[in-house]
Amino acid sequence: MRRTVKDVELTDGNRRVVVVVVDKGEDAVAAINEVAARRNIRGARVTAVGGFSSATLGYFDREKHDYLPIPVREQVEVLSLQGDIAENEGRPALHVHGVLGHRDGTTVGGHLLHGEVWPTLEVIITEVGARLLKRVDPETGLALLAGETGQ
Amino acid sequence: MRRTVKDVELTDGNRRVVVVVVDKGEDAVAAINEVAARRNIRGARVTAVGGFSSATLGYFDREKHDYLPIPVREQVEVLSLQGDIAENEGRPALHVHGVLGHRDGTTVGGHLLHGEVWPTLEVIITEVGARLLKRVDPETGLALLAGETGQ
Amino acid sequence: MRRTVKDVELTDGNRRVVVVVVDKGEDAVAAINEVAARRNIRGARVTAVGGFSSATLGYFDREKHDYLPIPVREQVEVLSLQGDIAENEGRPALHVHGVLGHRDGTTVGGHLLHGEVWPTLEVIITEVGARLLKRVDPETGLALLAGETGQ
Repeated sequence: MRRTVKDVELTDGNRRVVVVVVDKGEDAVAAINEVAARRNIRGARVTAVGGFSSATLGYFDREKHDYLPIPVREQVEVLSLQGDIAENEGRPALHVHGVLGHRDGTTVGGHLLHGEVWPTLEVIITEVGARLLKRVDPETGLALLAGETGQ
Repeated sequence: MRRTVKDVELTDGNRRVVVVVVDKGEDAVAAINEVAARRNIRGARVTAVGGFSSATLGYFDREKHDYLPIPVREQVEVLSLQGDIAENEGRPALHVHGVLGHRDGTTVGGHLLHGEVWPTLEVIITEVGARLLKRVDPETGLALLAGETGQ
Repeated sequence: MRRTVKDVELTDGNRRVVVVVVDKGEDAVAAINEVAARRNIRGARVTAVGGFSSATLGYFDREKHDYLPIPVREQVEVLSLQGDIAENEGRPALHVHGVLGHRDGTTVGGHLLHGEVWPTLEVIITEVGARLLKRVDPETGLALLAGETGQ
C-alpha cells in the first residue's frame, strides 16, 4: 500500500502530537481529515506551512449563511494555516484558515476549502487534551465550538 | 450568571492548555485578557481563528512611539491571530498580531487593538511553563519580553 | 559575553519549550538557527510575532527551482511567523514562512530568508518529541520533511 499521507504520532502523557507530511497533488483538507479520523483526534491545534499549486478559500457571507468561494489558480506559498480539530456529530471536524502568498508577495486568505499541495505541506497537530464539541448555531447554520468538552 | 466567555482549562503536568470560545459581540482582546487574569496565565502562546464584524489593528510608528490605528469596518475572516501572554508589572499582558481577510480574499493585518467577534473566535492558549516577564524598553516605551523568567 | 539572543529553555517531560527574544538589529533567521543548533533542537514548531526594520522573503519558482527574492525595505509588523525545525544532513534546519504588515495594514508574505529585528521578535519553539528528518526531493532540489523520525 502506498501511503500518500505520511504521518507520525508522538505521545507525551495525555497529549499526542501528530506530524503530517502531505505529498504533491494531495488535497490538504482531505489529508488532514483522513489523519484526524484514523487517529481519532477530537480536540487539537493545527498549524502548517508549505505550498499549493491551486486552492479554494472561503469567505462567510452573513446574508447567505454560506461561504463565498475565492479561487486561487496559481502556485502560492502557504504562509500560514491555522485552526483546530473538534468533534461534530461524532466525527472529527477541521476548521482551518489560510494565508497564501503570490509571486510578488501579495497575499490572499480565507477559510480553507481545498488546497492542492505542491511541493509539500508540513502539518503539526497538537492535541489540547480533551474532546472539543461543536454544536450547530441556529443563527448562522455553522457548527461552532460549544465551550464544552467531552470525556 | 451568563458566561459570555466560555473557557475550558486542561492540564498535563505543568503546562496548562486553555481553550476559549468568544461569543458574538464580545471584544477579543478583553475576552482573552479576562481569561488570562482569572486563570493567572503569565507565560503562554496564543493562536485563534474565527471572524470579526469590525476591528482596530495597529502599526507601531517609530517616530511617534505609538500605534497608528488601522480601522476595519466590515465583516472579516480572522485568518490568523498569533502571539503570547507575558507578565507586565504583575499583570498578564497580551501581545497578539492578526491577519484579517476581506470578502475578495485580500488581507489586512496589524497589532490587535480591538476585534468584535462574529460569529465566533476559537482561541487556544498553551502555557510555556514559566512566567515571561516584560520590561519597558526606554527607546520605544514598549514593554518587551525581557528574556528572563520568574518562578 | 553579551548575549544578543536571549533564550530560555523550559522542560516538561520529553518536550522542551524554548522562548527566544531576538534583539534589535539581529537577523531573525540566524538567531533562531543559532538557538536551534546550540540547544540541539531537531523537531519543533516555531511561531513568532514582533517587528522587522527590513526583510527578504522568498517565493519558490517552479521553473527555476529556486526562491525569487521579495525585498521589504521599511519597518513592518511581523504579523505571523510560522514553521518548523527539522534535521537536514545532521544539522537543524529552519523552515519558516512569514506575513508582514505595512503602515496601512496591507500585507506581504513569503518564505523567510532574512528579517532584521526591530524593536523585538518574540519566538516560541515547542518540540514535537522526535527528530524530524529532511531528505532532498529530486524534482525540486528542496529538502522536504521525509515523514520519518529518528531516535
